[in-house]
Amino acid sequence: MNEFDFIDRLRQRANSQKHSARVLTGIGDDSSIIAQRADRDLIVTTDLLVEGVDFLRGASPARLLGHKALAVSLSDIAAMGSRPFWSFLSIGMPRDEWTTNFKDEFFEGYFALADRFGVTLAGGDVSETKESIVIDSIVLGEVKSGAAVNRSTARAGDQIYVTGHLGGAAAGLKLIGNGARVRQESERGSSPTVREGVGTEPLAIANGLSLSDQSTSRSDDDSIQTLLLRQLRPSPRVGWGIILGEEHLATAMIDISDGLSSDLNHLCRESNVGSLIESSSIPLDDEVKRLCGRRALDPLALALHGGEDFELLFTVAPENVSRLPKRVDGVAISHIGAITEAPEVRIREQNRIWDLKPQGFEHFRD
Amino acid sequence: MNEFDFIDRLRQRANSQKHSARVLTGIGDDSSIIAQRADRDLIVTTDLLVEGVDFLRGASPARLLGHKALAVSLSDIAAMGSRPFWSFLSIGMPRDEWTTNFKDEFFEGYFALADRFGVTLAGGDVSETKESIVIDSIVLGEVKSGAAVNRSTARAGDQIYVTGHLGGAAAGLKLIGNGARVRQESERGSSPTVREGVGTEPLAIANGLSLSDQSTSRSDDDSIQTLLLRQLRPSPRVGWGIILGEEHLATAMIDISDGLSSDLNHLCRESNVGSLIESSSIPLDDEVKRLCGRRALDPLALALHGGEDFELLFTVAPENVSRLPKRVDGVAISHIGAITEAPEVRIREQNRIWDLKPQGFEHFRD
Repeated sequence: MNEFDFIDRLRQRANSQKHSARVLTGIGDDSSIIAQRADRDLIVTTDLLVEGVDFLRGASPARLLGHKALAVSLSDIAAMGSRPFWSFLSIGMPRDEWTTNFKDEFFEGYFALADRFGVTLAGGDVSETKESIVIDSIVLGEVKSGAAVNRSTARAGDQIYVTGHLGGAAAGLKLIGNGARVRQESERGSSPTVREGVGTEPLAIANGLSLSDQSTSRSDDDSIQTLLLRQLRPSPRVGWGIILGEEHLATAMIDISDGLSSDLNHLCRESNVGSLIESSSIPLDDEVKRLCGRRALDPLALALHGGEDFELLFTVAPENVSRLPKRVDGVAISHIGAITEAPEVRIREQNRIWDLKPQGFEHFRD
Repeated sequence: MNEFDFIDRLRQRANSQKHSARVLTGIGDDSSIIAQRADRDLIVTTDLLVEGVDFLRGASPARLLGHKALAVSLSDIAAMGSRPFWSFLSIGMPRDEWTTNFKDEFFEGYFALADRFGVTLAGGDVSETKESIVIDSIVLGEVKSGAAVNRSTARAGDQIYVTGHLGGAAAGLKLIGNGARVRQESERGSSPTVREGVGTEPLAIANGLSLSDQSTSRSDDDSIQTLLLRQLRPSPRVGWGIILGEEHLATAMIDISDGLSSDLNHLCRESNVGSLIESSSIPLDDEVKRLCGRRALDPLALALHGGEDFELLFTVAPENVSRLPKRVDGVAISHIGAITEAPEVRIREQNRIWDLKPQGFEHFRD
């Protein structure tokens, strides 16, 4: 199969999606064509994922990588209070992966998530690389004109919320660093916590958040699988994003990709405000609490600085708090603090108040 | 400077562009926001450029690489008969380039071309890579609703045209392979053919399209510089694209990125037609003719199969031929043949007719 045959096959797969009548031309031309609507704003995001930096080929099965590549961009669309519609994917891979199942499994994971949210793959590019896999994920969404939620529009007095739980993705990353690997049946989507009677593959776990200091119990193993999937198969909060935008509930929003401490600082800096959050209100991942409880690791530190949870961090005007749904798609929210006029970003832990410095992920620092 | 400082600086630079009031949110949020217009279709293209495959760091000065990254996508927008408006750029680079001038010079070249065509950089992503520079260039354009030109709509009897001249970019690539390098003053945009009295940097040219078999005359050296720039600083035919779309002149169009033989085959296959072109009508690059004339190389082969000229290949209904402008932005067109009902893609050379097989560039073939 050559490059053009592969693109033809992708085109057939994308055409079978049939989600969007507004894609006038999809894969297979110099560019793609999408019909516009004057009553909606277009939302565009791009996310570059690089092997060895953003993922490890040996630790990220292709199917999960396909899922994650799309998920991180869907999260950015959700963080604008908008609905995803179309995606584009540029992928470069070394020649040796061209003849493996990599690309088929990658797109299996990609399309499974795309179909779930009605997103049409409308174009992209394929290239060779010398060594590393590299993926640029582009998603286009829409929102009623003027209804998109920026990160720069929080106001003093707004209440701060976060979806889901934090720290799981960072714990999963630590586990990967310690040699833990996702089991094939977890990868394929069956929940590790309900699966029974399946043989456990060996886990090479060395130190840190690890189980080498004791026998690995069955439920610890399930916790590890769950945390690996928090890192490798994040769930973008698409439903929450749409509701927070369409219902004009959020005054500002950002997704937690760099870490709560970094992303709250981003939001406050862009909004020219500060914030005070309560450490006891931060929703810690249950599996992280379980595994960390018996070790020297601090679940709160993972939740504050870990990143890649892809939960939504948003602010709500006091008069709109009562209009917030309790759950969307089964995901609850937590009230963690409030926006302040004073520009400091602070956290209260028991009776002390600290400055919450950004300690999330940065690619470069010099 | 860390990643966020750099993005802040890019944001300031992009904001200084002030081209498009419809960018409601640009760089600096989770996604970008663009106001839509119901009377226009949106055109989207992405192009992945990988070091070692699509360019060599040592042979592509950063400023030219910034130019080319945008140029190849502008060419795709032009090939749809549309006008470019907004761009996004995902760039990954190894840590060692973070502290050099690379990114500044890259964006100098990028913005120079963007400003020339009124294109606003509206977003993107920055990542680290382990070794290679990788760039994904995304451009969004627009055209009157329904006026975009596909590659799949050529009809028997349509006349085939190409903008500019062919073969120069492929010759430039061969020269690079032989060790030729662009001079700094050529890189900065002064035309090598009018520049005088400047010292010539040593060229390490080994074989093939080379000058090692004789003393390098001054004008040969200028030809080499011109051909290197055809490869490293292609000129997207933005003006031609807009006119061919807006005036409903082209029935089908594609840009020549893989090579005339490949791209004409793409166009014919997608349109379910064939074609017959005249080899004597193919516009050969003058500098290629000069340098090749004294060697064993065939300028026609470079023009047919070389690729990366980023000229536009388009078809025109017979009744519209008289409406074609002679030149746009100083660039002429050549009539090279006609679309046929018979599905073969053929070329007439003197009195013989050959099948024109695609021999252009492919990333993978197995």
